[in-house]
Amino acid sequence: MLTEKFCRSYRCLVSGTVGVHALVRRAHEERVLSLLRDRGALSRAQIATRVGLSRTTLSEITGELLARGAIVVVNTDAKARAGSGRPAELLALDPHSGQFMGVDLGHNRVRVAVADASHEIIARGVSSYAAETPWADRLAAAFALIERTGRESGVTYQALQGVGVGLAGPQPAGSAQSGIVSDAFSRRFAAPVLVDNNTRFAALAEAIAGGDDVRDVLYVRLSDGIGGGLVVGGRLVAGRFGVAGEFGHITADRSGDVCRCGKRGCLETVASVPAVLRACRLATIEDLSAALATGDSTAITTIERVATAVGRVLADAALILNPEQIVIGGRLVRAAPGIVARAGAIVEAELVPAGGDRPRIRAARLGDDDGTLGAIAALFKQSPLLAGYPETAGSMQ
Amino acid sequence: MLTEKFCRSYRCLVSGTVGVHALVRRAHEERVLSLLRDRGALSRAQIATRVGLSRTTLSEITGELLARGAIVVVNTDAKARAGSGRPAELLALDPHSGQFMGVDLGHNRVRVAVADASHEIIARGVSSYAAETPWADRLAAAFALIERTGRESGVTYQALQGVGVGLAGPQPAGSAQSGIVSDAFSRRFAAPVLVDNNTRFAALAEAIAGGDDVRDVLYVRLSDGIGGGLVVGGRLVAGRFGVAGEFGHITADRSGDVCRCGKRGCLETVASVPAVLRACRLATIEDLSAALATGDSTAITTIERVATAVGRVLADAALILNPEQIVIGGRLVRAAPGIVARAGAIVEAELVPAGGDRPRIRAARLGDDDGTLGAIAALFKQSPLLAGYPETAGSMQ
Repeated sequence: MLTEKFCRSYRCLVSGTVGVHALVRRAHEERVLSLLRDRGALSRAQIATRVGLSRTTLSEITGELLARGAIVVVNTDAKARAGSGRPAELLALDPHSGQFMGVDLGHNRVRVAVADASHEIIARGVSSYAAETPWADRLAAAFALIERTGRESGVTYQALQGVGVGLAGPQPAGSAQSGIVSDAFSRRFAAPVLVDNNTRFAALAEAIAGGDDVRDVLYVRLSDGIGGGLVVGGRLVAGRFGVAGEFGHITADRSGDVCRCGKRGCLETVASVPAVLRACRLATIEDLSAALATGDSTAITTIERVATAVGRVLADAALILNPEQIVIGGRLVRAAPGIVARAGAIVEAELVPAGGDRPRIRAARLGDDDGTLGAIAALFKQSPLLAGYPETAGSMQ
Repeated sequence: MLTEKFCRSYRCLVSGTVGVHALVRRAHEERVLSLLRDRGALSRAQIATRVGLSRTTLSEITGELLARGAIVVVNTDAKARAGSGRPAELLALDPHSGQFMGVDLGHNRVRVAVADASHEIIARGVSSYAAETPWADRLAAAFALIERTGRESGVTYQALQGVGVGLAGPQPAGSAQSGIVSDAFSRRFAAPVLVDNNTRFAALAEAIAGGDDVRDVLYVRLSDGIGGGLVVGGRLVAGRFGVAGEFGHITADRSGDVCRCGKRGCLETVASVPAVLRACRLATIEDLSAALATGDSTAITTIERVATAVGRVLADAALILNPEQIVIGGRLVRAAPGIVARAGAIVEAELVPAGGDRPRIRAARLGDDDGTLGAIAALFKQSPLLAGYPETAGSMQ
C-alpha cells in the first residue's frame, strides 16, 4: 500500500509521463530480484507480502522474470511437499549462476563456506595455524583450505560472485591489514572482495539465523576480547571509519582495572574470558563451567557482576538504537549461559521509560561458523539496487 | 568503479541477457532521479561523482531524462554565475512539479515550512498556543497557520507530494498521538503523511545542513528534556519500535536524582535545562548565560560537570556507532556553548582505542526551524527506489 502510494506521488513528480510506467515496473522487478538474492527461495505469496505488491501485479512480474531466465522455479521445500496438498512453488535466482564465498581468518584458524545463489551451503572447511603465524602464511593456509574444500565438494569457483573475508579485531576503513587481505583475495579470484570485522559478520548472521531476518539487532560477543555488531534497518553498520561495534571499550567501571587500550574499567576488563577467569582465580573456561555447575559462590557472584555490567552497557545501547533483538554470544556465554537472562533483566529494568514494544534478549544461535555465514550474508545483501552496506564499509574492491 | 563491478556481476547473475542492459540503465536512471530528489539541484559533474558513473554514460542518461521532462536545467547557481567563466549547468527535478511540507507541532507552538522539488523553501510560518492546548485545538492552529502561510506566500498546496509532521516526545510506532495527527493531516491533504519525533527530524536536518550531507551523525539536544537522533548510512534511524535516540534516559550517575521516568541519575537529571538551573540555583536560562559571562564559579563548575556527563554518554554511543559527526544542540548549548568543546574533549579521550579517523564534534547549526527542515528532508529521502526510512518508521500512512 505504501509502495503504491509512493509510486503515485513519484509518477506526479517525474512529470513527463513517457516511460514512467516502465520505470515503476523496473523498480518492482528490481525489488523482487533483490529480495531473492538476499533471501534465497521464496513462494509468490512470500514475495508479494515482502515487496508490498498485489498478487496480480507480482504474477506479471515473476512471469516476465521466469521467461527471461532471471529466476527459476526450485523445489527446496521438501518438507511442505511431504505434507498434504500441493506445495507452493518456490522461486529463486538460478542457483547455478552464482557462488558466494565466506572466509573467516581468525587468530589461530581459518574457516571457509561457499553458498550458491539459493543460499544453499555447498562447501565448508576449517584449518588451524599457530596464533603468531604471519599474514602471508595465514593467507597461504586460507587458499590451500579453499582449494581442498572445493576439491572435496566438487566446487570449482568458476561462478564466484563475491568473496567476503572476516578478520579478527576492528578493521578501520583503509587499514593496512584489510588492504593486504583484500589485495590477496582480489588477485586470486575474479570477483569483488569485501573485507570486514568477523564479529560484525557474525552479527549479520545472527540477524538472519533461523529465517528470522530481524532488521534491527544489537550483537555483543564475550570471548577473549569483546566485540559487537549492529544491524540497523536490515543493514550491517560499519560506521563512518569502519570501527562501529566497539562494545568492549565502553566504560563499565570507572574505578576498575586498566585495560589494554589504556583506559580504565572498559567492559573488556570485566566481562572478557580472561577477566572473568582472573576474578574467579580459575585457569580455563572449562574450570569456570565446572565451578558454576558445582555452585561455587565466587564463580556465581562473578558471573552476576559480569551480567550486570553487560546488561547496563546493552541497555544504554538499546536506549539509543531501539533494536528488535539483543543477541549475546561468545565463549563466555557458552560456559555461563545464565549471563543472558540476568543481563536481559537488567536491560528490561533500564528501558522502562522508552515505551513501545521491548527488544527480545537471547543467546547467540550460531556456532563457530557465524563469521563465514555472515560474510556470505553480507555478499547477498550487496545488491547493486540498494545503496547499502558496501558503499559505506570502505573495504570493497 | 564499484557500481560498474557490481553491474558486471549482476549481469552474470540474472543470466538471461535479454533486457539486462535496459535493467542496468534503469537502475542508473533511478539513482540519478533519486539523488536529485534527495539533494536538489546538482551539476552533471556532481551527479557523476555521486552515482559513480562515467561522464559519457551520465550524459546519455541525463539527455534522456531531460527529453522526457523528468528533469530540467535550473539556474540557482547565481554566485558561481557572478564569477568568471561559464558556470556549470545545474540539473534538478522540475521544481513546479512538487511541494513538500514540514510541520513541527511543539509543546507551545507550531511551525511550518514548504519546499519545492529543488529544495527551495517557498513558504514558512510559526504560531503559538498555550502549553496545555488539547490536540484538536493544536491541529486547528496548525491548519490555520498552513492556510495563512500559503496565502501570504502564494502557495496553493496543489502539488503537495508529502507532509512530514514532527511531534515532541518519543513516538512509538502506532502510538495514539501519532495516529491522531497522521489521520488529521491525511484527511486534510491528498498526500502521504509521515509522523515522527521532531528531535529525530532535527538530527536529519543537521546531517544535511550546509550542504554537507554527512551520512553518519549522532545528534543530542539538551533542552527542557533531552532527546536525540541518529543518522546511519544517510538514513534516519527510528528503531524497531519507533523510539530510537533516547539519550536522555541513559544513566549518567547511578547515585544521582530520581528522574521523571522512575530511574535514578538519567542524563536528563544532570544535563537538561531544569536540572542545570536547579544545580546553579538560577531561575531562567538567561540567568545562566549571565552567570557564565560574569565568571560565576557555581555556574562554571556545573557546566563542566554537565559537559563531562554528556561527553561520556556520547563517547559510549560513538564507540558503538562510529559516527562521522557528533552534533550537540538545544537551548542549554545556546546559553552555554562551552559545553561542546568540553564534551568533545571527553569523547576524544574515551575513543582512544577505536582507531580510524575521529568523529568531528560540533554545535548544532540550525535554529528553531530544524524540525520543519528535517521533516522536509525526510520526505526527500523517501524515494520509492530505496528501501529506506519510511518502511521502518512505522507511522507512514
